[in-house]
Amino acid sequence: MQFIKELRDGEKISSIYLVKQKISATTKAGKAYDNVTLLDKTGEISAKVWEPNSPAIDEYEIKDYIEVTGEVTTFNSALQINIRRARKVSEGEYDPGDYLPKTPYDINTMYEELLGFVDSVGNPYLNKLLSVYYKEDQAFIERFKFSSAAKTMHHGFIGGLLQHTLGVVKLCDYLAANYEKLNRDLLITAAIMHDIGKVRELSPFPENDYTDEGNFIGHIVMGVEMVDDAVFGRNGKGGIEGFPRVLAEELKHCILSHHGEYEFGSPKKPSIIEAVALNCADNTDAKMEIFTELLESEGGKSGWFGYKKMLDSNTIATRTE
Amino acid sequence: MQFIKELRDGEKISSIYLVKQKISATTKAGKAYDNVTLLDKTGEISAKVWEPNSPAIDEYEIKDYIEVTGEVTTFNSALQINIRRARKVSEGEYDPGDYLPKTPYDINTMYEELLGFVDSVGNPYLNKLLSVYYKEDQAFIERFKFSSAAKTMHHGFIGGLLQHTLGVVKLCDYLAANYEKLNRDLLITAAIMHDIGKVRELSPFPENDYTDEGNFIGHIVMGVEMVDDAVFGRNGKGGIEGFPRVLAEELKHCILSHHGEYEFGSPKKPSIIEAVALNCADNTDAKMEIFTELLESEGGKSGWFGYKKMLDSNTIATRTE
Amino acid sequence: MQFIKELRDGEKISSIYLVKQKISATTKAGKAYDNVTLLDKTGEISAKVWEPNSPAIDEYEIKDYIEVTGEVTTFNSALQINIRRARKVSEGEYDPGDYLPKTPYDINTMYEELLGFVDSVGNPYLNKLLSVYYKEDQAFIERFKFSSAAKTMHHGFIGGLLQHTLGVVKLCDYLAANYEKLNRDLLITAAIMHDIGKVRELSPFPENDYTDEGNFIGHIVMGVEMVDDAVFGRNGKGGIEGFPRVLAEELKHCILSHHGEYEFGSPKKPSIIEAVALNCADNTDAKMEIFTELLESEGGKSGWFGYKKMLDSNTIATRTE
Amino acid sequence: MQFIKELRDGEKISSIYLVKQKISATTKAGKAYDNVTLLDKTGEISAKVWEPNSPAIDEYEIKDYIEVTGEVTTFNSALQINIRRARKVSEGEYDPGDYLPKTPYDINTMYEELLGFVDSVGNPYLNKLLSVYYKEDQAFIERFKFSSAAKTMHHGFIGGLLQHTLGVVKLCDYLAANYEKLNRDLLITAAIMHDIGKVRELSPFPENDYTDEGNFIGHIVMGVEMVDDAVFGRNGKGGIEGFPRVLAEELKHCILSHHGEYEFGSPKKPSIIEAVALNCADNTDAKMEIFTELLESEGGKSGWFGYKKMLDSNTIATRTE
Amino acid sequence: MQFIKELRDGEKISSIYLVKQKISATTKAGKAYDNVTLLDKTGEISAKVWEPNSPAIDEYEIKDYIEVTGEVTTFNSALQINIRRARKVSEGEYDPGDYLPKTPYDINTMYEELLGFVDSVGNPYLNKLLSVYYKEDQAFIERFKFSSAAKTMHHGFIGGLLQHTLGVVKLCDYLAANYEKLNRDLLITAAIMHDIGKVRELSPFPENDYTDEGNFIGHIVMGVEMVDDAVFGRNGKGGIEGFPRVLAEELKHCILSHHGEYEFGSPKKPSIIEAVALNCADNTDAKMEIFTELLESEGGKSGWFGYKKMLDSNTIATRTE
Amino acid sequence: MQFIKELRDGEKISSIYLVKQKISATTKAGKAYDNVTLLDKTGEISAKVWEPNSPAIDEYEIKDYIEVTGEVTTFNSALQINIRRARKVSEGEYDPGDYLPKTPYDINTMYEELLGFVDSVGNPYLNKLLSVYYKEDQAFIERFKFSSAAKTMHHGFIGGLLQHTLGVVKLCDYLAANYEKLNRDLLITAAIMHDIGKVRELSPFPENDYTDEGNFIGHIVMGVEMVDDAVFGRNGKGGIEGFPRVLAEELKHCILSHHGEYEFGSPKKPSIIEAVALNCADNTDAKMEIFTELLESEGGKSGWFGYKKMLDSNTIATRTE
Repeated sequence: MQFIKELRDGEKISSIYLVKQKISATTKAGKAYDNVTLLDKTGEISAKVWEPNSPAIDEYEIKDYIEVTGEVTTFNSALQINIRRARKVSEGEYDPGDYLPKTPYDINTMYEELLGFVDSVGNPYLNKLLSVYYKEDQAFIERFKFSSAAKTMHHGFIGGLLQHTLGVVKLCDYLAANYEKLNRDLLITAAIMHDIGKVRELSPFPENDYTDEGNFIGHIVMGVEMVDDAVFGRNGKGGIEGFPRVLAEELKHCILSHHGEYEFGSPKKPSIIEAVALNCADNTDAKMEIFTELLESEGGKSGWFGYKKMLDSNTIATRTE
Repeated sequence: MQFIKELRDGEKISSIYLVKQKISATTKAGKAYDNVTLLDKTGEISAKVWEPNSPAIDEYEIKDYIEVTGEVTTFNSALQINIRRARKVSEGEYDPGDYLPKTPYDINTMYEELLGFVDSVGNPYLNKLLSVYYKEDQAFIERFKFSSAAKTMHHGFIGGLLQHTLGVVKLCDYLAANYEKLNRDLLITAAIMHDIGKVRELSPFPENDYTDEGNFIGHIVMGVEMVDDAVFGRNGKGGIEGFPRVLAEELKHCILSHHGEYEFGSPKKPSIIEAVALNCADNTDAKMEIFTELLESEGGKSGWFGYKKMLDSNTIATRTE
Repeated sequence: MQFIKELRDGEKISSIYLVKQKISATTKAGKAYDNVTLLDKTGEISAKVWEPNSPAIDEYEIKDYIEVTGEVTTFNSALQINIRRARKVSEGEYDPGDYLPKTPYDINTMYEELLGFVDSVGNPYLNKLLSVYYKEDQAFIERFKFSSAAKTMHHGFIGGLLQHTLGVVKLCDYLAANYEKLNRDLLITAAIMHDIGKVRELSPFPENDYTDEGNFIGHIVMGVEMVDDAVFGRNGKGGIEGFPRVLAEELKHCILSHHGEYEFGSPKKPSIIEAVALNCADNTDAKMEIFTELLESEGGKSGWFGYKKMLDSNTIATRTE
Repeated sequence: MQFIKELRDGEKISSIYLVKQKISATTKAGKAYDNVTLLDKTGEISAKVWEPNSPAIDEYEIKDYIEVTGEVTTFNSALQINIRRARKVSEGEYDPGDYLPKTPYDINTMYEELLGFVDSVGNPYLNKLLSVYYKEDQAFIERFKFSSAAKTMHHGFIGGLLQHTLGVVKLCDYLAANYEKLNRDLLITAAIMHDIGKVRELSPFPENDYTDEGNFIGHIVMGVEMVDDAVFGRNGKGGIEGFPRVLAEELKHCILSHHGEYEFGSPKKPSIIEAVALNCADNTDAKMEIFTELLESEGGKSGWFGYKKMLDSNTIATRTE
Repeated sequence: MQFIKELRDGEKISSIYLVKQKISATTKAGKAYDNVTLLDKTGEISAKVWEPNSPAIDEYEIKDYIEVTGEVTTFNSALQINIRRARKVSEGEYDPGDYLPKTPYDINTMYEELLGFVDSVGNPYLNKLLSVYYKEDQAFIERFKFSSAAKTMHHGFIGGLLQHTLGVVKLCDYLAANYEKLNRDLLITAAIMHDIGKVRELSPFPENDYTDEGNFIGHIVMGVEMVDDAVFGRNGKGGIEGFPRVLAEELKHCILSHHGEYEFGSPKKPSIIEAVALNCADNTDAKMEIFTELLESEGGKSGWFGYKKMLDSNTIATRTE
Repeated sequence: MQFIKELRDGEKISSIYLVKQKISATTKAGKAYDNVTLLDKTGEISAKVWEPNSPAIDEYEIKDYIEVTGEVTTFNSALQINIRRARKVSEGEYDPGDYLPKTPYDINTMYEELLGFVDSVGNPYLNKLLSVYYKEDQAFIERFKFSSAAKTMHHGFIGGLLQHTLGVVKLCDYLAANYEKLNRDLLITAAIMHDIGKVRELSPFPENDYTDEGNFIGHIVMGVEMVDDAVFGRNGKGGIEGFPRVLAEELKHCILSHHGEYEFGSPKKPSIIEAVALNCADNTDAKMEIFTELLESEGGKSGWFGYKKMLDSNTIATRTE
């Protein structure tokens, strides 16, 4: 397979890619052609089909996998592919792992581990709230397991939301065991649900882009709405009888304040110790993953990586073994 | 009447005040006494009842009005009253306007004007949403009419929320008439509802302090929850059939972003022109009121008022007439 | 007409443009040629005249309109035109509105409306001050009516300064009618004059760039100098006998502080209520125009516009009608 | 002499002070008394004259020196003097240096040194401009020589403006001799005039407080107005024929930008090398004086002075000799 | 025992306190007296010995424990004790725990746990470096075990540095086990040594104040100097042969950057993943302790604690159990 | 000579350059070629040797000077040279001054002047400390004389560190003579040593890039380490007997705080007056040099240079002569 990141001007290609976008257009001379965006796990590339009605071009849609034959050219200082032949391929002809970025850990194993934490929450109201989403709502569960945690920051891959959530939950579990003022049930519940709004903030892969609601409301406030849905009954959920008012407020507060600072989009700063702990855990797991992804993307490089905005620092791989 | 702000050390008093707090305590020597906080519109003062069981001391509770006889002393560098006699008085013996700060405008007249704006909203979903609160929910209407808009900032008095809301709505009405890209229905609705969460963020007078929910969640996010309650049906509200998804998001976005900046507690920055307009109108009405209140509180003063934090400036009354 | 923004590499053109710059140069081989900048309302493009003395090339100067025949090429990753023929055209052959950006409103009508506000100022000193500029100084009036309000921000077109000034004045008129502490005469005068220094900060179209004085002093301080010129008599102005000292200081303070924050170039923060009101009105009109221009420039686009620096937000057109 | 800073509760006093303020008032019981503010170089103190019409109390006015007999008491947690006898004293009975803070250097000697720099400016326009103020305008010269440079920051004493100006000029003279790109005439002129507006920003001693104009306009913009007055002729000045436009703009720019940052009140950042040099010299002389004054005020103290806001640091005297 | 925090004006006392300071002075009338500062774990109080040579006053020095008989008065709005009798007491008459704040955990147990982590570091150079300080240098070990971690922030008590260090080390141990890119040896070593400079930045109890060196250099850079001392041999240490250059730089970098931000005194931002992890762990342990101390100091309080600067938030105890 | 900055696409060249980098590579087709970076004082350019084993290509290494024959082409929007012939040239065939940027002043003359300042320091400990480096350590002296003061900021050329150091020392000498509280010996020593760590922070020319140590530790902390080395004896230095503790701390503090602000990498803010003076002098010399370099690089340009990040301002050459 010829990965997109490695294509060079002038190269002939014959390789399978995932279709991310397909838009029909017309040249100034009135001739129909297709603008296509192709995707693999290494990046995206624009492509042109100049003869869309030719027999060499199969019917295909967005999210189809097609085998493309053509050549790489430069247009407006960027590479693009002129597609001469496009064949829609079948499952089995390609490895999905080559096309969409995915967590390196097993999704089902991670989800089982997360459910273990759900079961460990003894407070009946919190336990029920978690169950409503993580054990009873199959559509949500599917969405949660395959969602990314970001468009471009850390954990921006399939299963990323689950991996990040589990990382935060485990770190909170450590904190609850080591700092005695922490209420473990509240902290674990808040950790499991802290980014729950991301299942609606980002559209599923291969798009993985901000939804309207994501842009307008944001996952932090949507997380509060999702707590409300389950606690008070709405959107097909039945409500949880007797859920204590203060408990609901404390949980929603943890979600609202988990970014820790106003400038990171939290409308409240942490006011209870569990909110402080969640903010620390979220920040720690995020930074560990950011640096891990950086080390992988700069993998072969000896020497300094240069300034990296997400870490606000010039970075390098540790050389001591 | 001897207003609290004007009391001096050593003064004898005999005057009616509102009881804000009353806490029973015991001296080191084991004697019971009462710690009381008294209130009028000019301020608060601590008071002590050293003989709470004396016949000179009537039975009374928080929010009662009592006539206090005693003297002013200094304790820990602050004035307090030693209460010798306390008589619970009846309505009619005092003017409530002397005790709680109140808008200088007529509350019912302002509310009628606000209802005129409600009726002017032609979009049926927005009109219905406004009606659910401002025309149909009597408990909410009472709360809204008498709520303050702040604990210590601007409009911190009975009717302040209504006065500020009306000021913002009228300014938005002006903007909608003068800037053609603005959608008037959306803007007027957002203006009417922008601070709706304040009815739950602040407790009623005489307390007028942040509630738990106010501290944990804040009126901005509570405003979104109240839109959800009405639109999706919750908390005794029936829901509004067919309310367009995008419209709900745009409205909630206006509420979320109306403070304009992350550091002022908005988790989103304005993304649509109505959100920008609402932020400008809210800011303008707030600043006009802050300066108006400043001019009144510094009323008799010639010369510069000194640095005022809320305006981040040294200020003075305009002398040109 | 082939608008500059729509030109493509390789295209043949024959179209009329405005000459913004013309510089004679010599190739390494010693051959004379001309570097020309052409302009229409959609943008600018560099052009080369390789045979400047050919009979196919008319005599022309900066600010002339010429019909250009040639072709579009790419040089250093940017488009440019190779001019084969250049014909100086006459008025009537082109529509000036195609070349320079201009307010969509009628300039004379707006100016009449502004004069109505001038006449409404009852304070004789302020009225006289306004008249000195807006009614008696013909050169100033011409400059003011056709000046833009910015190089690249909002209202960056012919008549932009007038349109923005009128927008701010009308909003201040609204505020003066609704907030009783405001001194209308002072506020209206300050609004009319707040950006008066821009007639010297920016050179006239088609250049519309910062002058030396604009860069060195800035329109805010120049506005103060222009008040001084008229009040104290200077630069051909006679002075206004008896102009009250405090009134002059209050007016100059409003101009100095109208950006509201030090980091926006105001050396003083607003200290009187009219200065606060002017700052709010200026900010509101500017933001409404910025968003209006954004909606027009992104006109046909469905979906999010992406982060816009001037609004510090990701933006979108409102979809509710 | 009993210095004000050293007075203690209960002390009897009989000492000469300068009268800063005197306000007649009436007790609640209707008795006339005087509120007086007394001053010496160590500070201020409130005083009461309970029998203003007694023969023991001389006639006196603000800025008179009076010998006060009475005792020190505490009122509202602050010391004050009850004046039993007040005798207006004559020049010669006191040392003026005990009452108003003053530069430790000789004012006339410093002014002569400054005039030497004036004469060293060879550019005829700049030389004339300096002469108009520093050699020809006697009222200005008196004001300049005795003005302080600040209310509370550095050089807040009689002659402080002159001392600071001379310090900046000498440092600029050093820079002009060592950095060849600097235009000495422009830099020296800008240094001499950089704080000229302070003669109007602060009222004379003993008041030494911000004037209206100081608060509304500020010494930076007033400096520009004073350049304009002399260059263009205004306020009794005749104008300087042929003063080059660019030179005037460069000089005004140096004055406007000499604080170096918007947040310090400069509406422009330095754009020419002389403006950068002036900003560095002003900052350096100010910081040297701030630290010098700090060392003097903390004089006898061994150990750390604690955090000092003006230096944004915890400070200490250097121990190495 | 009568704790200092609970003393009241007018109270008679007879209680044992620790002498923190003792300064001989003379009244204006020429009479000798002593200014004394007394300490217990609840705070400090000034005291006066008016008859220092009386037989009722024992000889005593700073750090002695004395039984004080006298009464509490108010002077300059603060409480002080007039000491009539002072008796130097013997060990056994008092509980040292009543006088100096101390970690609630056992110091020796914590140190043993820390040594376990020292032994777990397999890299021979790092292991040797740790041993030089934590196993071989008895003076250092004593100092480290009893040092506080701060003057006023978190862990400001005897054993606080050890407790905080252990908290950070354990959290780093968790992180090293869960994030595979981390080099455990480097991270654990950096965690153990990250605040090592604090043994010299703060003087021992009861003073616990910044030393000269602490103020001038700071514990961050002093930590680097202490690494250098051991690695290169200095100050009585022998040096570690063959210590890899890069390893020393990585370790020193972790120490230098552990505050994470320039404004918190780190001259470098974290560049390697272990430095990022250490910064997260340090921040998390600090915040957990700050909130723990807050909950203890506000212990009995129901309701909101008000704004707390160290957490930059209004805070409250979690009510859910 | 054809300077790199002036090369154009398509040009034939035959000119001598310095080899900065040389990396052997292989085309996809398996053919060996060399990637070379060539340097002169005007910039760098990439070059390709497609026939590295041809007899037309001499043997050469990094830091050799070679005469290159070939042509300039464009690759990935940047110019590069295709090298057809490469001849290694001998000293004498080129002027080294054409290849590496160098101070315009004579290095040995400047160093003599610096030694004069070393000798003027009377304090024996400081004098000895300076001698250890500046008079006795030949390797250091060579490094110091030829080091640049920056990679990209000011003084980024051979001899730049020496020129900047001398500029700061001379300015400090001026300050010590004019502000009496300054300890000249301490200030001059701190000035001479303030950037001493730069000899290790940056690698020598032609590389002149940050070293590992420079990135990890930074020249500020390395300066402290170098003081320690000499004072306490380490790294082949003998130590200075009896060096006063406080003096060492004051000197190290001056070095640590000389950037003046945390965000510029100083872990401490200036606490003594010499540290404040050094910060001012360093800042002033740096800004004078930045503007001087700017004027030279923009030399022929009339008009505004546009925004310059290092001066945070739009800049222009002064026109007044």
